[in-house]
Amino acid sequence: MIKVGLLGCGTVGGGVVQLLRANASYIAARVGAPIDIARVLVRDPSKVRVPELDRGRITTDASAVLDDPTIDVVVEVMGGVDPAREYLGAAIAAGKQIVTANKMLLALHGADLLERARKHGVDLAFEGAVGGGIPVIRVLRDSLASDTIVSLCGIINGTSNYVLTRMRQDGLSFADAVKEAQDKGYAEADPTLDVGGGDAAHKLVVLSMLAFGARLDGARVPTEGIDAVEPIDHAFAERFGFVVKQLAIAKLARDGSALELRVHPALVAKDTALANTSGVLNAVAIEGRALGPCLLSGRGAGDMPTAVSVVADLVDVASAKKSGISGNMTRAIRLGERKLAPMADVETRYYVRFSVFDRPGVLAKITGALGERGVSIEQLVQQGRGTEDVPVDVVMLTHEAKEAAIQAALEVIGKSDYVAHAPRMIRVH
Amino acid sequence: MIKVGLLGCGTVGGGVVQLLRANASYIAARVGAPIDIARVLVRDPSKVRVPELDRGRITTDASAVLDDPTIDVVVEVMGGVDPAREYLGAAIAAGKQIVTANKMLLALHGADLLERARKHGVDLAFEGAVGGGIPVIRVLRDSLASDTIVSLCGIINGTSNYVLTRMRQDGLSFADAVKEAQDKGYAEADPTLDVGGGDAAHKLVVLSMLAFGARLDGARVPTEGIDAVEPIDHAFAERFGFVVKQLAIAKLARDGSALELRVHPALVAKDTALANTSGVLNAVAIEGRALGPCLLSGRGAGDMPTAVSVVADLVDVASAKKSGISGNMTRAIRLGERKLAPMADVETRYYVRFSVFDRPGVLAKITGALGERGVSIEQLVQQGRGTEDVPVDVVMLTHEAKEAAIQAALEVIGKSDYVAHAPRMIRVH
Repeated sequence: MIKVGLLGCGTVGGGVVQLLRANASYIAARVGAPIDIARVLVRDPSKVRVPELDRGRITTDASAVLDDPTIDVVVEVMGGVDPAREYLGAAIAAGKQIVTANKMLLALHGADLLERARKHGVDLAFEGAVGGGIPVIRVLRDSLASDTIVSLCGIINGTSNYVLTRMRQDGLSFADAVKEAQDKGYAEADPTLDVGGGDAAHKLVVLSMLAFGARLDGARVPTEGIDAVEPIDHAFAERFGFVVKQLAIAKLARDGSALELRVHPALVAKDTALANTSGVLNAVAIEGRALGPCLLSGRGAGDMPTAVSVVADLVDVASAKKSGISGNMTRAIRLGERKLAPMADVETRYYVRFSVFDRPGVLAKITGALGERGVSIEQLVQQGRGTEDVPVDVVMLTHEAKEAAIQAALEVIGKSDYVAHAPRMIRVH
Repeated sequence: MIKVGLLGCGTVGGGVVQLLRANASYIAARVGAPIDIARVLVRDPSKVRVPELDRGRITTDASAVLDDPTIDVVVEVMGGVDPAREYLGAAIAAGKQIVTANKMLLALHGADLLERARKHGVDLAFEGAVGGGIPVIRVLRDSLASDTIVSLCGIINGTSNYVLTRMRQDGLSFADAVKEAQDKGYAEADPTLDVGGGDAAHKLVVLSMLAFGARLDGARVPTEGIDAVEPIDHAFAERFGFVVKQLAIAKLARDGSALELRVHPALVAKDTALANTSGVLNAVAIEGRALGPCLLSGRGAGDMPTAVSVVADLVDVASAKKSGISGNMTRAIRLGERKLAPMADVETRYYVRFSVFDRPGVLAKITGALGERGVSIEQLVQQGRGTEDVPVDVVMLTHEAKEAAIQAALEVIGKSDYVAHAPRMIRVH
């Protein structure tokens, strides 16, 4: 019998209890022993709505889980940094195996927790933290055995993807799409962490820690939200053969040492699997040196998909515990320091939209300001005709250039009197 | 030290040797012991082109691998049914762990091998058999711990996908596209197994065995190749918002007992990830009851991606061996009999192209013949105008109907004097 202490019993925790019950015999065969939810820590027992749960096991006292020497595995699905961090620290020190789905905790303290787990010879599994039911953590962990990850690029915030999809496919405004996402339960009352890119940045840190073996706790990821993407940008992107997606990108810089991390909207070629990951779906594209490109997609959020991942992790660590090989999972992971490449050095192509007054020589001034800084134009579209007083949209796709160069050019152009407002820039993936 | 006997040392085997060498320290930490390629069985030692290999370990004598009690794991990358089947049978009986990438062997004898492995308490891993480097076997195996698979649908033959992609995107004829695939090394001199659907059927049987726990050795999968898809079908599909893909489909029939297996070209909605899996890429879409939809894609063929999968398997079974828990992987898999649903009962929508002489009442006759058998039309397009003697293409999309009904209607219509040749039918996914 493998005894589990469950920290938190909201919708994900309830899903875990249900899945363990529904698949008990397969799981017992796989682990070599049944799994028993021995203790469930919650703040308010009256709020627990899980009929499968023996209510006698519910407790409000953390020490009833953490100090119980018979508990083999602690499964943390309570969320938030505190007190989850303290609880998991205590559980690791007590030699318990850990499963967590807490992306924020891992983004801030994941390397620290992994290293503690390694020191104490316990497993620490966290598939549920990123990409809901998509087994991306598992794939990264296994790939490391036989490959070197060169880059990863994901659509890892379902809310943002839903909002962008509705704007593009159905012409909704940003505000209306966010409102709809809230009504459907896809977005929080305060959607900032989702649409602002913070949630994706957390998940990117967790993925990158594993993919690149990097100690990234609290890393400051250059992050842009999707709130500045306008319906007209979707229309222009379409015209150029692209779709606007919110991407989280991590890759080895050209010299192979520094790591480039960033979260921002990007133009993605229309006929790719990533561009066709719509609605609340998530996708992570991984490029391995030997493997080549590999894409995983599925429901990124939602209680049952996350519960599926948590149970898969639980089966892994329980099997290891039963077999007396706990700690193997963390022992192989060695994290090192990695310099983050400055955003100014990032090189991509750019989509730039200017709102210009149609005066003689305006285009020459714009292309001149870009050209002086080494940014050359690949395509240019002017939508209709403006006048000297009514601005018209001019959109350009550039060749590859450094972020510093495009930013410098846009700053100069934005301050000139021939544009109606600051240029809008979206990077091209 | 985990000692490995390698059966076969062509391009995949060579890739395995290289990856083991390149990632030796990570693998040793993960397994808890170094992995040593102790013996390599080949037919002709003079043809082995793997500089990393100590040539003293090469043998042409199978018993030097199979009868050596110090060999812990046998890795089979020789391909073909015989003598691979005999070798693996002997290795299992000798208590060795097995890794194989042999899809044909598994399609014909996989359940038998799995059950033998289970009886002898050894592991049998086969990620390399399907989808190259895509970890689909692993995901299915892990998903079973916490979920029920409802359906899977894959693009699992890279050659067919390449041919269809070139036809659609660049207007090549089937023959020219096949020729090009051969020139690029994507297709064999005899491409029948690929473009005829046989290879995809093998892989579908392997996937379905695992996904549905079904004993399917030698199952006869209803299979259609891509050779009858014409450029005009790609054009019409596009017009309706679809792309033609060669799909391998497995799902639980509506009553939940029988299993529906089939391989054939299909119209796939243009804005889905599956439709945008182009060229030699493979993709497998899995639908789990709890997980929801999940898609994995990547390089389906090729030596290095397959080698990545073989090494990942090897790390798994070597870790288990080192920890004394070999056999856990196969112990949990219980295969049962599953009835295959007859193709006649399959219900989908259909794309049908008729080449008709433009005589009065022809459309009424066609729609009548369909309607009598319960097949109703959703959309109809006539391309240009024919005459009484020069046929014109009429294309219809139907509502859902049984395979038996559409076949019966098409047979009647095909025999009539108002069509120039037999109708062309493609199922809609």
